[in-house]
Amino acid sequence: MINVGVLGATGAVGQRFVQLLADHPWFNLHTLTASERSAGKKYGSIVNWRLDAPFPDSIGETVVTPTTVESVKDCDLVFSALPAEIATPLEAGIAEAGVAVCSNARSHRMDPDVPLVVPEVNPDHLGLIDLQRDRGRDGFIVTNPNCSTIVLVMALAPLRSFAFTDVRVATMQAISGGGFSGVSAMDIYDNVIPYIGSEEEKMETETRKIMGRFTGSEIEDAPFGVSASCHRVPVIDGHTLAVWMDVGAPVSEVKKAYANFKSPFSNLPLQPAKPVEIFDQPDRPQPRLDRNRGRGMTVSVGRIREGLRFIALGHNTIRGAAGASVLNAELIYSKKYL
Amino acid sequence: MINVGVLGATGAVGQRFVQLLADHPWFNLHTLTASERSAGKKYGSIVNWRLDAPFPDSIGETVVTPTTVESVKDCDLVFSALPAEIATPLEAGIAEAGVAVCSNARSHRMDPDVPLVVPEVNPDHLGLIDLQRDRGRDGFIVTNPNCSTIVLVMALAPLRSFAFTDVRVATMQAISGGGFSGVSAMDIYDNVIPYIGSEEEKMETETRKIMGRFTGSEIEDAPFGVSASCHRVPVIDGHTLAVWMDVGAPVSEVKKAYANFKSPFSNLPLQPAKPVEIFDQPDRPQPRLDRNRGRGMTVSVGRIREGLRFIALGHNTIRGAAGASVLNAELIYSKKYL
Amino acid sequence: MINVGVLGATGAVGQRFVQLLADHPWFNLHTLTASERSAGKKYGSIVNWRLDAPFPDSIGETVVTPTTVESVKDCDLVFSALPAEIATPLEAGIAEAGVAVCSNARSHRMDPDVPLVVPEVNPDHLGLIDLQRDRGRDGFIVTNPNCSTIVLVMALAPLRSFAFTDVRVATMQAISGGGFSGVSAMDIYDNVIPYIGSEEEKMETETRKIMGRFTGSEIEDAPFGVSASCHRVPVIDGHTLAVWMDVGAPVSEVKKAYANFKSPFSNLPLQPAKPVEIFDQPDRPQPRLDRNRGRGMTVSVGRIREGLRFIALGHNTIRGAAGASVLNAELIYSKKYL
Amino acid sequence: MINVGVLGATGAVGQRFVQLLADHPWFNLHTLTASERSAGKKYGSIVNWRLDAPFPDSIGETVVTPTTVESVKDCDLVFSALPAEIATPLEAGIAEAGVAVCSNARSHRMDPDVPLVVPEVNPDHLGLIDLQRDRGRDGFIVTNPNCSTIVLVMALAPLRSFAFTDVRVATMQAISGGGFSGVSAMDIYDNVIPYIGSEEEKMETETRKIMGRFTGSEIEDAPFGVSASCHRVPVIDGHTLAVWMDVGAPVSEVKKAYANFKSPFSNLPLQPAKPVEIFDQPDRPQPRLDRNRGRGMTVSVGRIREGLRFIALGHNTIRGAAGASVLNAELIYSKKYL
Repeated sequence: MINVGVLGATGAVGQRFVQLLADHPWFNLHTLTASERSAGKKYGSIVNWRLDAPFPDSIGETVVTPTTVESVKDCDLVFSALPAEIATPLEAGIAEAGVAVCSNARSHRMDPDVPLVVPEVNPDHLGLIDLQRDRGRDGFIVTNPNCSTIVLVMALAPLRSFAFTDVRVATMQAISGGGFSGVSAMDIYDNVIPYIGSEEEKMETETRKIMGRFTGSEIEDAPFGVSASCHRVPVIDGHTLAVWMDVGAPVSEVKKAYANFKSPFSNLPLQPAKPVEIFDQPDRPQPRLDRNRGRGMTVSVGRIREGLRFIALGHNTIRGAAGASVLNAELIYSKKYL
Repeated sequence: MINVGVLGATGAVGQRFVQLLADHPWFNLHTLTASERSAGKKYGSIVNWRLDAPFPDSIGETVVTPTTVESVKDCDLVFSALPAEIATPLEAGIAEAGVAVCSNARSHRMDPDVPLVVPEVNPDHLGLIDLQRDRGRDGFIVTNPNCSTIVLVMALAPLRSFAFTDVRVATMQAISGGGFSGVSAMDIYDNVIPYIGSEEEKMETETRKIMGRFTGSEIEDAPFGVSASCHRVPVIDGHTLAVWMDVGAPVSEVKKAYANFKSPFSNLPLQPAKPVEIFDQPDRPQPRLDRNRGRGMTVSVGRIREGLRFIALGHNTIRGAAGASVLNAELIYSKKYL
Repeated sequence: MINVGVLGATGAVGQRFVQLLADHPWFNLHTLTASERSAGKKYGSIVNWRLDAPFPDSIGETVVTPTTVESVKDCDLVFSALPAEIATPLEAGIAEAGVAVCSNARSHRMDPDVPLVVPEVNPDHLGLIDLQRDRGRDGFIVTNPNCSTIVLVMALAPLRSFAFTDVRVATMQAISGGGFSGVSAMDIYDNVIPYIGSEEEKMETETRKIMGRFTGSEIEDAPFGVSASCHRVPVIDGHTLAVWMDVGAPVSEVKKAYANFKSPFSNLPLQPAKPVEIFDQPDRPQPRLDRNRGRGMTVSVGRIREGLRFIALGHNTIRGAAGASVLNAELIYSKKYL
Repeated sequence: MINVGVLGATGAVGQRFVQLLADHPWFNLHTLTASERSAGKKYGSIVNWRLDAPFPDSIGETVVTPTTVESVKDCDLVFSALPAEIATPLEAGIAEAGVAVCSNARSHRMDPDVPLVVPEVNPDHLGLIDLQRDRGRDGFIVTNPNCSTIVLVMALAPLRSFAFTDVRVATMQAISGGGFSGVSAMDIYDNVIPYIGSEEEKMETETRKIMGRFTGSEIEDAPFGVSASCHRVPVIDGHTLAVWMDVGAPVSEVKKAYANFKSPFSNLPLQPAKPVEIFDQPDRPQPRLDRNRGRGMTVSVGRIREGLRFIALGHNTIRGAAGASVLNAELIYSKKYL
């Protein structure tokens, strides 16, 4: 087992990290960081646990440390649930100090030598780690995409052979995407907010990087365009996407491609039995019923019909955030990058 | 004043009709029909009024009649809030009997000689009434579109001069669209249902008829394609649409076209000051804040951006149902079709 | 017409004040105050209007002033929608400066010489104004109760002749009671929060003051006890109360007392036709259907049954906040206290 | 292992039974019954699985049988999730036929010789089974209480030594209590329904039977009174209760009694580690965060304060329905009544 830490362990994503790591077979949850105010206190005494999964008592006695490079120097790898403004310098500092960083923050996703990885989609992009090392870093940073991007790329990956174009995606995103306090009840109850700051830009740029080609020295963006329209709806967890794309193949071929899609790995503890699950019922997937498939790591796809149109759904704080980072770490560890 | 009736006056749309007609300056609400079970009783005693607008006491003493041709023979015009399976034969029978029918039911919308009308969009389609009379009807049927179609065509009408193509629309539709009992709380709470039966087909066919050209003897469908993906979200009233279309013009031109759009009429009691209202704020329109603009008759459009992408919003049981029928009736009356 | 101002005009209660005062027949809305940041700008340009009632355009051009004594010296009366920590010194300062203050803040509600008034319940408590003047104030402060207290006292007032005891009340309170941003969606969605800070204490002490006897020199608290349990539920507007009390009279007598209850006034612009409306249906009142009765100023009571048990409901930001203050001001003005 | 069946296996409670029994260590889920329409088909093909727990694939191939006595004659025990009008004659018929019935239906709860049991509260009431046998039944019926009653009695049981009186309880009940289709979204969204048919009577009578004394030949009702006010709120699962009672003891003693409360059993597979969990935080328990404690079998109690007032919470379709029946069956089996 290797020692791991969570940067920003008390927020919505931080709590998900703790939930997923408390009993992890490979990773020993050694360090939890939070704000100065909480440092020095026991995690169980300062966290306001708001997941409906039970609090993992094994971690309650861990003494929280401040969110600094110094705090995590005994870790082999840290997970970052930090807001971008804090993450940008700190993650770089930690990587310089020789610790691997698996980050959910947007800060370094688009850095040319930082892998933006989804294990089932572009594991070869981990090769960028060598470029980071080449420029003198002892550690490295690996990132996972934005919570809505990852649902999209998981749904696009099985269709890669079709050389598709013109992806349009309308999202119906859950309130947990804004963190525990990000969305006020008065704003979203009985309402749709047809705008989420920077979300459309993230989906458009991140998708093309993830689906891009790693040449050995850089990522060439994928050649298709993405046009997103992002909306918040009154759902607690689970982002639903309505997708259009020109795929140049009949629906039957598309369904076949989905049916044949498999993860290239079989040994990662958090990977789901099915990375993408296909529904034939006309009214599925639905966030309340399907977000927890594969312990929140399966992306569900349904209503595949002419157009090409389909619906994709994933759990935004598990597959779309903490779980994505943990799965990346499992891949990194199994590939012996540590 | 002319005498009007409401067919199916106790349901969700029926109650909206009653609300809009109780104090109408041109129409005397003379007849209310309901199921056999309610016939003979006072409307106030049998209706389970569930609008948040107050019950119009003036209509409480009206004795409800059964939903038959006979019941409405003293009316000049009737509004139909009937389900399609009842509406199909009954509306035809009423029209044969010499009464005008303004129907919200889907039954006759696609009949070749039945106008499917939105006053601000295709008032000339009322010319089809003459074709109905030519084949021997004493009365006639005029229909309004499906609740999500009408929001779309109101948003497309100002852009007509651009000869656009490839309209794609993702809807986020309110639960009231399913009637008072159509959507169970267990189905929609904390959830999105990515399917509404027949809704996508209705949007695709009705839009092309409404935007089509009346040659004097028939409607030629509009030449652009429509691809819809329809979803139910936990909102009480107000359908929100995310639209993509190829418009061949810069955003600035599109905004100008919207700014210049006006109703061709100014004398209809229910018409709003602005048929389409444009928002510049990044996060508007929103159903809870904007659905009641123009007493529920204004369609709101915002987030007009490259793509061309925009958001459109309208009140589904007012502009999208009862209000649409009443506005049609006002147009018919003012054009002296009665 | 007299000149009035609103202290804190941009928040949830402040916007309700503006809505109720924009076209008031007696009061000219002269001054709107907000934070330093907004001062000097037009109200229409800085307010994020989030009521579903339309923005009153007539007030959009008013230049906002800072929230100081100086800002309101041209007003005859100001309404306070300030948080308590700001209200405590400022309202006193304004009253010293000769301006009448009708406050929704909790700051001075329990001051011995400050009336805590509901016009239909204890209008004679306005006599305390003289005591404020006796100690040298040129203006005065009059307060209205907490949003849940006022629903309770409106429901108790008609039963005064029964000399009741042991009032127990469980509340189901709306999220708007926490202001626009006070309740996060992640906290309340699919949830009940069985606690609202200080709410139970407010209900218990304020109720006894309001229902108390004014001796000419002080208020003697009412002799009955109140025990409250306060809970937040996922409702936008409208507080629902389940009440038990020992009333020593049969249900039929209680219903008669409610039926006979009338406002002692008939000339106040905002007072509703019925201050308390009684329901016989088994499942009413309900917040979504009944909160807007009497333009939000009517308190609804139903399910009166042995125990004595009943349900009471009122609109928390109209009758429970801004409307309560405005009605107090109307009473003050009509009684020539200004 | 013994063979068990579920009567009415496709509804909201029926699905919970299947979820809890699919991998039960003592019970082999042998028979699933449903309406005539579904009989003869595989359960997996006809059930519209709407729990967020995953569908137990092991049971998908089971062929559904009609809901008759004949269908369950190979079972040792059946669980009933039937509506009362069907349950009344059928459960009696099944018991006559020699099969044990653990019923969630209200039909036989108040029968003098039918135990109404909660294992942690009144396990001795199972002695009534002998009275059923004495009158010639080969099998027997055991019932569990209504979903809100059970939360109340679990919260009262630890306080038995205090000889309390005058229990008043206001409920905030979840929509799943009405079944999958029982509550329409238009009725409950942004709303409270202050009435649930027969619920108050059930709480008042069932509580006194459960807390009553078994004399060996009958149950003597508990001597305290219960007065309930029952309300539906927009929560998916989890009933929250605000309770008042005269307990004649200080809060500190009450807390001690709760802390000392233990289940009299330790070997039942579904029993939770803590039957009642006590919270010290001011704002707990909350349904979304606490309903799943103890796999939905723990009742949470908090806000214990002078009055005596407290909040109690339980999962209404697990501890309040299917889980209650399964725990009863486990007790029956372990006590060798079969």
